[in-house]
Amino acid sequence: MYQAGLIGITGYTGMELARILATHPNISLKYATSRQENGKYIEELYPFLRSYPIGKVQITDFDATTITKECDIIFLAVPHGTAMNTVGEIFQLATKLNKKIKVIDLSADFRIKDPQLFENWYQIKHNQTALLKNAVYGLFDLYEEQIKEASLIANPGCYPTASILGLYPALSHNIIKKDIIIDAKSGTTGAGRKAQVPSLFCEVYDNFRPYSIGGKHRHTPEIEQELSRLTQDTIIVSFNPHLLPIERGILNTIYAPLSQNITLQEIHTLYQKTYQNKKFIRILPLGQLPETRNVRGSLFCDIGIAVDNRTQKLIITSAIDNLARGASMQAIANANLCLGLDVDTNINFAPVCP
Amino acid sequence: MYQAGLIGITGYTGMELARILATHPNISLKYATSRQENGKYIEELYPFLRSYPIGKVQITDFDATTITKECDIIFLAVPHGTAMNTVGEIFQLATKLNKKIKVIDLSADFRIKDPQLFENWYQIKHNQTALLKNAVYGLFDLYEEQIKEASLIANPGCYPTASILGLYPALSHNIIKKDIIIDAKSGTTGAGRKAQVPSLFCEVYDNFRPYSIGGKHRHTPEIEQELSRLTQDTIIVSFNPHLLPIERGILNTIYAPLSQNITLQEIHTLYQKTYQNKKFIRILPLGQLPETRNVRGSLFCDIGIAVDNRTQKLIITSAIDNLARGASMQAIANANLCLGLDVDTNINFAPVCP
Amino acid sequence: MYQAGLIGITGYTGMELARILATHPNISLKYATSRQENGKYIEELYPFLRSYPIGKVQITDFDATTITKECDIIFLAVPHGTAMNTVGEIFQLATKLNKKIKVIDLSADFRIKDPQLFENWYQIKHNQTALLKNAVYGLFDLYEEQIKEASLIANPGCYPTASILGLYPALSHNIIKKDIIIDAKSGTTGAGRKAQVPSLFCEVYDNFRPYSIGGKHRHTPEIEQELSRLTQDTIIVSFNPHLLPIERGILNTIYAPLSQNITLQEIHTLYQKTYQNKKFIRILPLGQLPETRNVRGSLFCDIGIAVDNRTQKLIITSAIDNLARGASMQAIANANLCLGLDVDTNINFAPVCP
Amino acid sequence: MYQAGLIGITGYTGMELARILATHPNISLKYATSRQENGKYIEELYPFLRSYPIGKVQITDFDATTITKECDIIFLAVPHGTAMNTVGEIFQLATKLNKKIKVIDLSADFRIKDPQLFENWYQIKHNQTALLKNAVYGLFDLYEEQIKEASLIANPGCYPTASILGLYPALSHNIIKKDIIIDAKSGTTGAGRKAQVPSLFCEVYDNFRPYSIGGKHRHTPEIEQELSRLTQDTIIVSFNPHLLPIERGILNTIYAPLSQNITLQEIHTLYQKTYQNKKFIRILPLGQLPETRNVRGSLFCDIGIAVDNRTQKLIITSAIDNLARGASMQAIANANLCLGLDVDTNINFAPVCP
Repeated sequence: MYQAGLIGITGYTGMELARILATHPNISLKYATSRQENGKYIEELYPFLRSYPIGKVQITDFDATTITKECDIIFLAVPHGTAMNTVGEIFQLATKLNKKIKVIDLSADFRIKDPQLFENWYQIKHNQTALLKNAVYGLFDLYEEQIKEASLIANPGCYPTASILGLYPALSHNIIKKDIIIDAKSGTTGAGRKAQVPSLFCEVYDNFRPYSIGGKHRHTPEIEQELSRLTQDTIIVSFNPHLLPIERGILNTIYAPLSQNITLQEIHTLYQKTYQNKKFIRILPLGQLPETRNVRGSLFCDIGIAVDNRTQKLIITSAIDNLARGASMQAIANANLCLGLDVDTNINFAPVCP
Repeated sequence: MYQAGLIGITGYTGMELARILATHPNISLKYATSRQENGKYIEELYPFLRSYPIGKVQITDFDATTITKECDIIFLAVPHGTAMNTVGEIFQLATKLNKKIKVIDLSADFRIKDPQLFENWYQIKHNQTALLKNAVYGLFDLYEEQIKEASLIANPGCYPTASILGLYPALSHNIIKKDIIIDAKSGTTGAGRKAQVPSLFCEVYDNFRPYSIGGKHRHTPEIEQELSRLTQDTIIVSFNPHLLPIERGILNTIYAPLSQNITLQEIHTLYQKTYQNKKFIRILPLGQLPETRNVRGSLFCDIGIAVDNRTQKLIITSAIDNLARGASMQAIANANLCLGLDVDTNINFAPVCP
Repeated sequence: MYQAGLIGITGYTGMELARILATHPNISLKYATSRQENGKYIEELYPFLRSYPIGKVQITDFDATTITKECDIIFLAVPHGTAMNTVGEIFQLATKLNKKIKVIDLSADFRIKDPQLFENWYQIKHNQTALLKNAVYGLFDLYEEQIKEASLIANPGCYPTASILGLYPALSHNIIKKDIIIDAKSGTTGAGRKAQVPSLFCEVYDNFRPYSIGGKHRHTPEIEQELSRLTQDTIIVSFNPHLLPIERGILNTIYAPLSQNITLQEIHTLYQKTYQNKKFIRILPLGQLPETRNVRGSLFCDIGIAVDNRTQKLIITSAIDNLARGASMQAIANANLCLGLDVDTNINFAPVCP
Repeated sequence: MYQAGLIGITGYTGMELARILATHPNISLKYATSRQENGKYIEELYPFLRSYPIGKVQITDFDATTITKECDIIFLAVPHGTAMNTVGEIFQLATKLNKKIKVIDLSADFRIKDPQLFENWYQIKHNQTALLKNAVYGLFDLYEEQIKEASLIANPGCYPTASILGLYPALSHNIIKKDIIIDAKSGTTGAGRKAQVPSLFCEVYDNFRPYSIGGKHRHTPEIEQELSRLTQDTIIVSFNPHLLPIERGILNTIYAPLSQNITLQEIHTLYQKTYQNKKFIRILPLGQLPETRNVRGSLFCDIGIAVDNRTQKLIITSAIDNLARGASMQAIANANLCLGLDVDTNINFAPVCP
């Protein structure tokens, strides 16, 4: 049984991590931290976890020494900026204690490889560039081997997960021009659990709205970095998110001009081949399109392929559960891998539909 | 007081027409027809209209002679294919009776000017081509004068309304290339009131799905026809709709490459000028984006303008209430105009937010 | 044209007041106040009101002198406790200025006639008992004449509106025993627009929860006071509210044992007679039950009557729009009446269904 | 590995059964039947199950001989009336084949022990009274031993599950009078997957409505039968259901007068003791109330206890997932038990919150 720490349990990603860990057969949550909920039992904060052993874990304030000493793996579900300092502190202590530790950071702090690019988009100077160099981007379908060996895993952003998995086969097979538009739609757990008026029920329900239109969203450089790295090319995308009045789910509709004479059937075959051994990526049969409910509460990324013949565009639709695949369940997949467990230990849940 | 007939009251557009007519000071609903609800009072079918005089109107089976004789204006809220026959019958009778009658058709039957194009997309031969020639496309912001004189008005589709109003200023000022992508999202009233599994609550709620991806939706030729006509050019669009788990509302995110060196501020000014006297089109200040709730239950079309500088794309976001502006309230606006009333008689409702 | 002031525009009741006033033909919003939004134009705060003259009203900080001098009517949409002080200040100034002014208080401060009872439930000492004595309870269906003459109107609570209207006919005709249970369900606008975690979208959506179960909700004494007053008896109720994942709407299911041998048909007739001239109360035909959507965005209170013969209970179901009938639209009805206007001026909206 | 048959896969209970069986380690779905979807693969009907072995099971028409021969356990998710005939046919064949078979019927056909009472409420004559006598009511928390031995299990109704579990401790300890009101609220999966207008998204969303008010719902006799049997008394309840605009979840608010001088704390202790070894019943701490999201996708029944001191009523609130605990997950629990497996095999899912 591996001992786990969870730093920042009060947000939706922390909540989902606790939910999945509640039934994990090989990882036990030992420490959960939160400044504001310090002292409470998890079952008081999250009554849905009552009666699970995890419910009796008492939330503490963060203490680097204790958590580093007693945990095998630490999940960070804290805001960017905060995460890098905490990760730095943990690894410093681990070195001093001569202890091997695994860290999964769910923030953006270790995703962008270029510190200057990070600073441009996040307005924070990166102060852990040595750790940044060794951090592995935790998209386990593509980087499984590196993740197994990694100490520090930068858990991917939700939009990037759905975007990269959707575009990778087309880009790597060179069938689209580099004029890519991602029209992204996300459920509201993506906006976090902070008390703020725009996230209130009556501001979101029966409503739909775009935001950060025109290349302003911070997931843009993450998508571009990974697509560029995977294709050994410079990929620029126009990424445009919208807020859906649902809890869980991202659906991306991705547009790119076809670069060659290729049939829809051929494209579909390429997609299937690219992901043929990837258990959690499902290429839908031609004519079918993904829906967020088909992946709800699961690790699946569903991908649909279509071509608009009148305008010669490839249209890729990809769907994930932003909270599960796009954050906490993917974090557990990464944890499983780097601890030497089966990737799908305790996360092979059938989607909750309806 | 003008006497009105409503053919097909059982769908959502018929329901919304009844709702608006319930309080109209100058138009009185005299006949409402439905095969399956024949004999019921409107208040039995629609309890929310109880206590309004309209509630006491008894639904009848369709009888062309009576309705043509006794009505000044007829609304058709029946499926395409059916509408053209009924409209043909009404005008034939009207001619025989030497009676001037106004007809607002909410179906697609008189929207597409080219009968062959209509047949290609709708798989039905048009059998009223003479009437088709004289039908006026009821986008009152752009065709107000023609609507005032028209006998037969083809009420625009919901997606076309939001698409055309969003694109017209950019296209008519030649600031975008003709490589247009419309990523459209609609509330579920757009799917109609037919009893079918995919429209059930538990198939739509907490879900989001694309459909008719790749230029397969029938609103495509309508958008292209109007944009081509307005710009005297051949406009092709990639139109891709999605189903939102909300009742009312369309939000289109429209992408097109900029064709010239122009600032966002200049584009914004062009949009404002184009629509400066159009009461029901609101160009949002720069930095603001439309939301479906801001137009719910109203005739407004809200338009937001952004530029993705990294990819040199103009991104237009336009929002309407698909049922009100995209169908029945627009039909009443057209009725007002062609009856010589103020366009906004009984439809100047403030949006219902929240 | 009457000049109106609105103190506290940032909550949902303030928002809805602004929305209705936007199209009111006889009342013009001159002042709108908010500490935190001070300086903004209403259309910046509420983009859905853009293009209405009200959108150009600039929000100010509260200044008692200005507002008292320049307004004919003042709406208070501020928390209880705050309201009583502000009302006191306004009437003191009005007396000094020898000015007649009408005040509609949407808080609870002037609803409970007994200051001690108020203190028990609200934990605040009432400091305006003189004004309290003259305040009229603004349930216009029952107190129309008093409202016409009133200077200070205590706008009823949302739950009490639906509860009192539902119970009054049965109690006043003595057909039920005084063992009354109100199982109440309210939409989330009732929880206010304060930024707090329990009101977040992801805490309310796809969820249903009871709260303040067991006679703990502050609307209890208000319901009891009015029912006791109307029946000249002492009425105690068990009032138990629940939170619905919808925006607008209250539905109360009210249970009471029948006290006499009376048929359902007779009860129904009594209900119809009691409210026969009440335009905004609709007694549904036997066999029909109210739904929140049938009253959405309207002033209607829909009431359904049933009897459980096996247990000899009368079951009354009553539905209102908590924000419209339960707060702001009722406030405008009261304003209309006390200003000498037709009660339904600008509030005779057909329910927004769907 | 036990072989299972599922008769009637197209409804929500069939869908949920397939979902749970998809990952069951000891039960394998061999046959799934549906008249209208005959020939399809499960993954075509339910794309969310793609990539699971169950997705490759081909749906067939019902054939009693094959299914009886090749299955160890059969789930019936067909309408009442149909179920009894099918069950009769299966057991007749099993006897002929000298084969032991287990049948879990999710319909109402074997729940009501008195055939005449069944006929009164369901308007169908019971034609399998011999089987009816031996059928075990599948509320596993209370009838675990009988279920283990049973051949035919009548899976409880959703409302009865939440009602009986909520009331049993109070009734069995004699602390309430037999004047019981159940105000029940259910998510829309409870209305089934039949294509009908009242179940359409736009008829349910942003709406709340009562139905079958006044003791007309067919779950009434089931609740009364079980409570009477468990307490050896005659229990009559006033059961009144409402439709919630959510997918999964029932919350019952149950009212009954206290029959003796007992403190809330004592009642709470009684509840805890009654269910102390019941893993899937959670008595909430005093002051906490159940929410449907806290049990979503799980087998839990959460129960909250309150007393209205002013009216001396016990108010029990109980919540379940109507589709999981109220139907298909409970069916799997029963299957596990009667097959000799651990009750919680593959159904110990943490609730999906949010």
